Amino acid sequence: MAQRKGNLMSVRKDVKVLDATIRDGGLCNNFDFTDEFVTELYKANVKSGIDYMEFGYKASKNLFKTSDFGKWKFCDEEDIRNIVGDNVSDMKIAVMADVGRCDYKADFLPKSESVIDMIRVACYIHQIPAAVEMIDYFHELGYETTCNIMAISQANLNQVQEALEMIVESSVDVIYLVDSYGSLYPENAADLAKVYLEAAEKNGKKVGFHGHNNQNLAFANTIETLSYGVSYLDATAMGMGRGAGNCASELLLGFLKNPKYSLYGLLEFIERYMIPLKNSGVVWGYDLQYLFTGQLNRHPREAMNFTADGRSDYCEFYKGLLENF
Amino acid sequence: MAQRKGNLMSVRKDVKVLDATIRDGGLCNNFDFTDEFVTELYKANVKSGIDYMEFGYKASKNLFKTSDFGKWKFCDEEDIRNIVGDNVSDMKIAVMADVGRCDYKADFLPKSESVIDMIRVACYIHQIPAAVEMIDYFHELGYETTCNIMAISQANLNQVQEALEMIVESSVDVIYLVDSYGSLYPENAADLAKVYLEAAEKNGKKVGFHGHNNQNLAFANTIETLSYGVSYLDATAMGMGRGAGNCASELLLGFLKNPKYSLYGLLEFIERYMIPLKNSGVVWGYDLQYLFTGQLNRHPREAMNFTADGRSDYCEFYKGLLENF
Repeated sequence: MAQRKGNLMSVRKDVKVLDATIRDGGLCNNFDFTDEFVTELYKANVKSGIDYMEFGYKASKNLFKTSDFGKWKFCDEEDIRNIVGDNVSDMKIAVMADVGRCDYKADFLPKSESVIDMIRVACYIHQIPAAVEMIDYFHELGYETTCNIMAISQANLNQVQEALEMIVESSVDVIYLVDSYGSLYPENAADLAKVYLEAAEKNGKKVGFHGHNNQNLAFANTIETLSYGVSYLDATAMGMGRGAGNCASELLLGFLKNPKYSLYGLLEFIERYMIPLKNSGVVWGYDLQYLFTGQLNRHPREAMNFTADGRSDYCEFYKGLLENF
Repeated sequence: MAQRKGNLMSVRKDVKVLDATIRDGGLCNNFDFTDEFVTELYKANVKSGIDYMEFGYKASKNLFKTSDFGKWKFCDEEDIRNIVGDNVSDMKIAVMADVGRCDYKADFLPKSESVIDMIRVACYIHQIPAAVEMIDYFHELGYETTCNIMAISQANLNQVQEALEMIVESSVDVIYLVDSYGSLYPENAADLAKVYLEAAEKNGKKVGFHGHNNQNLAFANTIETLSYGVSYLDATAMGMGRGAGNCASELLLGFLKNPKYSLYGLLEFIERYMIPLKNSGVVWGYDLQYLFTGQLNRHPREAMNFTADGRSDYCEFYKGLLENF
């Protein structure tokens, strides 16, 4: 059986924290962040020792109208540079590219001309061949790459193993275990992480974890998978992210023992920007409706509709979920 | 190394769920619950398959003025009977008695005359000898007993082992690991649980877990310790409890695989009573100030004061905590 790597006091130098506030949080407010907000988050992340900051999606402007979304749905090079300049910091810049939702051959510059460091390719498990094609393309352009295999709690172990066999043969740097539905428990998150790690490490790849907080387990699952060797950890300020949200950066930064990480740098941002954002009515975070879909291992869309409609008839909602199993 | 008992699908017949909503939740509203609220919670708990319902404290009326608190600070026999009658259900009734804060020789009837089934003796680790005296007294009266050793995250392992050696020699039925400060991570909660289990099982005792949610880990720690053999699990409706609150019953009931447990029975209560209670302004649950005290392994009292004062200057509060280390 795989052993834990280090203990609760260990400084795991292999760990990288990725802030996904703008990207996953943008799903809560249609990417409608002010430049001031993004600039201050960038500065706070640098101060806190965050390793990567994800700015948003590189979505296709043919599929999505720019007038329907904030700019971080598209992450134009000049918009990122407007925040980070040439990014003279130790923190790297990431964007996400969804399989099937981006014009990857048109919209990405060679790395030598871009301030972006890493492209994270998100896909469902049946899209792995398409993801591999994109990853190899981005690798050729000179970028670091990740493959974020979403909704993994609905895949069976055979599928996972087949997907991993395929992806480890690509040029990908990091393979992410993504609990999109927030339905994994620490025990099965750890079991899956061990499967990922075994396949990845043989091929010199790293493994990442991206949690959702439907069952209040995003942080627990993150540190549990970390303990077995997962090293790329996604987090967001105050857990801001779709539905029940993600692992909160403030929980993770307070847990990690590497002195490079500082909770205080982020706290100032939270007090000045995140709490006002939440008070302004942008909604995310653990609530009963997300718990239900998480427990039932389902996409949170019905819970998101329940939230958007301002409903509070939890019992009726729950019965409806059970009827439509 | 201790192995997990069963897997995520197992029906662990040894598991007992204890609802502590009135007792730990009462710390949020001075035990000011209506009889209707308590009666409906009692019915909901019976419907949901909860094994024990804790009504509150049996506090000394010499130390505490009855006019300062709701009745569940004192749990008079007739007040409990007013809710449960003779309790013709499969669910048992518990109350808590704090070492040093109750008149235990005056205030408890023999079990044959009481509707109470279990007395939970709460103590700090240096009070174990006093707890043993009370436990043996209650055992003689005919009650089931537990010893809830609080603030265990501040004790060292030697102290824990000495305390356990003493308590397992008593007539106690269940020894509780209590993470009062919400500062344990699943890894060290599990390590401590293994120490408790080893001492307890040799002497025919059971082990329980009572978590606090300062780091969003109350549920995770509960199921992690459960997996190694902890069998008495405290939970509260919507996690209602002091400060950051406890493990939410709805998370735990959805997790347990024994078909005797039903989430739906509790949900009706939550919708009709807990959400209105929360909307009325009673405050509990995870928030940054509790995260700080949890991370720093400190009593939440400063965070509770911060909350009560309606403060939102998190950075100043955090700096103050660091200065007073």
